[in-house]
Amino acid sequence: MKRHLLSAADLTRDDAELVLKTAEELRSLADRPIKKLPALRGRTVVNLFFEDSTRTRISFEAAAKRLSADVINFSAKGSSLSKGESLKDTALTLEAMGADAVVVRHGASGAPHRLAHSGWVRSSVVNAGDGTHEHPTQALLDAFTMWRHLGSLDGRRVAIVGDVLHSRVARSNALLLRTLGAEVTLVAPPTLLPVGIEGWPVETSYDLDAVLPKADVVMMLRVQRERMNASFFPTAREYSRRYGLDGKRMRQLQDHTIVMHPGPMVRGMEITADVADSDRSVIVEQVTNGVAVRMAVLYLLLGGSEPSIGEAE
Amino acid sequence: MKRHLLSAADLTRDDAELVLKTAEELRSLADRPIKKLPALRGRTVVNLFFEDSTRTRISFEAAAKRLSADVINFSAKGSSLSKGESLKDTALTLEAMGADAVVVRHGASGAPHRLAHSGWVRSSVVNAGDGTHEHPTQALLDAFTMWRHLGSLDGRRVAIVGDVLHSRVARSNALLLRTLGAEVTLVAPPTLLPVGIEGWPVETSYDLDAVLPKADVVMMLRVQRERMNASFFPTAREYSRRYGLDGKRMRQLQDHTIVMHPGPMVRGMEITADVADSDRSVIVEQVTNGVAVRMAVLYLLLGGSEPSIGEAE
Amino acid sequence: MKRHLLSAADLTRDDAELVLKTAEELRSLADRPIKKLPALRGRTVVNLFFEDSTRTRISFEAAAKRLSADVINFSAKGSSLSKGESLKDTALTLEAMGADAVVVRHGASGAPHRLAHSGWVRSSVVNAGDGTHEHPTQALLDAFTMWRHLGSLDGRRVAIVGDVLHSRVARSNALLLRTLGAEVTLVAPPTLLPVGIEGWPVETSYDLDAVLPKADVVMMLRVQRERMNASFFPTAREYSRRYGLDGKRMRQLQDHTIVMHPGPMVRGMEITADVADSDRSVIVEQVTNGVAVRMAVLYLLLGGSEPSIGEAE
Repeated sequence: MKRHLLSAADLTRDDAELVLKTAEELRSLADRPIKKLPALRGRTVVNLFFEDSTRTRISFEAAAKRLSADVINFSAKGSSLSKGESLKDTALTLEAMGADAVVVRHGASGAPHRLAHSGWVRSSVVNAGDGTHEHPTQALLDAFTMWRHLGSLDGRRVAIVGDVLHSRVARSNALLLRTLGAEVTLVAPPTLLPVGIEGWPVETSYDLDAVLPKADVVMMLRVQRERMNASFFPTAREYSRRYGLDGKRMRQLQDHTIVMHPGPMVRGMEITADVADSDRSVIVEQVTNGVAVRMAVLYLLLGGSEPSIGEAE
Repeated sequence: MKRHLLSAADLTRDDAELVLKTAEELRSLADRPIKKLPALRGRTVVNLFFEDSTRTRISFEAAAKRLSADVINFSAKGSSLSKGESLKDTALTLEAMGADAVVVRHGASGAPHRLAHSGWVRSSVVNAGDGTHEHPTQALLDAFTMWRHLGSLDGRRVAIVGDVLHSRVARSNALLLRTLGAEVTLVAPPTLLPVGIEGWPVETSYDLDAVLPKADVVMMLRVQRERMNASFFPTAREYSRRYGLDGKRMRQLQDHTIVMHPGPMVRGMEITADVADSDRSVIVEQVTNGVAVRMAVLYLLLGGSEPSIGEAE
Repeated sequence: MKRHLLSAADLTRDDAELVLKTAEELRSLADRPIKKLPALRGRTVVNLFFEDSTRTRISFEAAAKRLSADVINFSAKGSSLSKGESLKDTALTLEAMGADAVVVRHGASGAPHRLAHSGWVRSSVVNAGDGTHEHPTQALLDAFTMWRHLGSLDGRRVAIVGDVLHSRVARSNALLLRTLGAEVTLVAPPTLLPVGIEGWPVETSYDLDAVLPKADVVMMLRVQRERMNASFFPTAREYSRRYGLDGKRMRQLQDHTIVMHPGPMVRGMEITADVADSDRSVIVEQVTNGVAVRMAVLYLLLGGSEPSIGEAE
């Protein structure tokens, strides 16, 4: 595995499978009395968040602490670093303070790549979401969740449904799932598919009901309310009617098919409460898996020097 | 003791005394070179604060860290979780991330109960203040402070003075002190006593000077300045004259009587500086006891699996 | 060394040299697999920041964590403590919660001194910047950086260039460097030198080009953009032309001369990118040294009780 995790596209199949296997080992920690490993003791993980994202931040924080790393949270919003100082100087500063890994969330697509490729920084950079571009650990946790339920993803059919245009989750998933052998169909109204979609390794469809019966996985994307009034967006009612997952649609699914959502959900909009709380829903498990996958990523990037995984403290 | 701490009313006398005794053991830690116990190592305590309350948050944070738990602070204000996502989904998320205890502060009365009783959450919920309803760890630390100074609270007279209407501290104290055998008198102007006060296990009075000479404990409540202009509120001057504790009033107290305040104080309003800094004042000690009591609560709820209390690391 | 670190003026030459030597020992930790010492285990360091200063906060946080202390971050901005509660009550509260050291940043000059000298507080107070007054750990890290590059500072010539008027960095450096035997020249336009400069142990100059060839160290101060429109301030263009450090000016320096900046830089204003990134620039190293010096200060103030420095865990 490389030194950084910037894009799902950078992961080979071997890389991705190594993350999944490591996450599986680490996930079993949760059942032990002491849910901590000394693997990253003395290492420092900085959460550098230029955008608020409490969920992602605490998932990384929990992951790092469970590996005994020290965590420093750095909300760049309103800090002197966000005023006038370049991203490069911010990176140099964090590195100089001893950061071993910088987990970065930024509103601009490509910011983590600039951080990693400045040539100055020796620490590992993990992309925790950059603009509408990528969110590779989300894709890994999604793949991990599918893999735990379905086994190998080869030939599995995954429908990703909703506002693909603004979704870094969709993009990272499309790339990673392809690498793992799955067949991805993006389901969205034409105005919510990105320009250049022809180049993605996916099929597209405007018709959710045609796609559902064949899917092994249905991944609903979050609708961001602040975008609902934009001209390219259907009305809330129209969106919900055509692309929302309700109990009736759920009954079209095969028995083994699972329903996913990256959260936070808007119940009643893209997914109804009965679907979110149904037996098919693995939404809560995705959160648990998020911590395990981020532990695996930090462990593999920082090359824990202490007892092997599997040895609890 | 139950799995959650939601209301002072839920505590039996045995429960409450167990907390006090455990706090007493833990308080002695402060005198050791290493003020830490490994009791909750590997456990995660999440501070879920929908309202700012720096004091309460850092008291719980210090308590959890002194028991070697990992602490994740989660200010819901401005987070994506506070926008549109239900309290239930927030709880599910935190639980899925591995929270063993969720310490919750919320502006709405009853929010911690909803969290605890959703049926989905296995982690312990601790109410760190909900609306004008309850603040049970404050009542426990107050009772602990009285107990250390006066011994058994049976038959002891406690005067709670001021804005009872908006005070979760008053309510939780009234309930807990009754359980512990004390006699509580609430002293406030009629407009600052809550509807339904007849149902509380307390006496009420509008006359501070009549109550003071008999009290073993005088607990002054905080005046919240933002309420001072409301029509039900006396003027600041009037309030201070009738319900403020100054040096002259303090001289009416019995020799052993202690003066308490939950903080932060508005010196010169509900309490004068000479009273706050006098030998009778145990206000600073309340803060120290707050950490010990919160350690005890977390320890008892999470059932520390490691060496017994009393064994420092 | 005294119990507090409030002003660079309080440090004797022996004190300052002890900090530098201790920092040198601690800095070598960074090369070990586990960059942590158990020296302050069980101790609590509170970062009490009344002003935002992410860099300084995380430098202290990293320093304390590397010594195994527990760290509690307390941004007083918007907290109930900042509304109406006195600084004294805040200090009493933190002390009562068990703070062993309080690292305080405040907009008002002298606030840390009031905290330390209230007579109530037993914990150590470290000034992390008070108004335009002092920032002693910045001066220590600057001196440490010079000392590592130049050896003894006796007779060394240090030019401090820019907005001295508003710079606590300049003031603390002037005091400490004099104690360590260096000769300081402040270079600034007359309107950016403070009243009372005659009493400082420094020379002053308005002419950067005259000072540069003799300097062993050139320390550029940060220009705070929010002050650029004030009448006493030169225009940005004028400032940059007369007091900015560019490649041409850098070529006037002696071979061994180093260039420093406390950060964050405004590249192109007080310093050009080629200078900031040149071999003479020790700006990134200053950040690394900041963590080492703050470890040394916390270690010396709190008198680590565990294995001597030099023993990694």
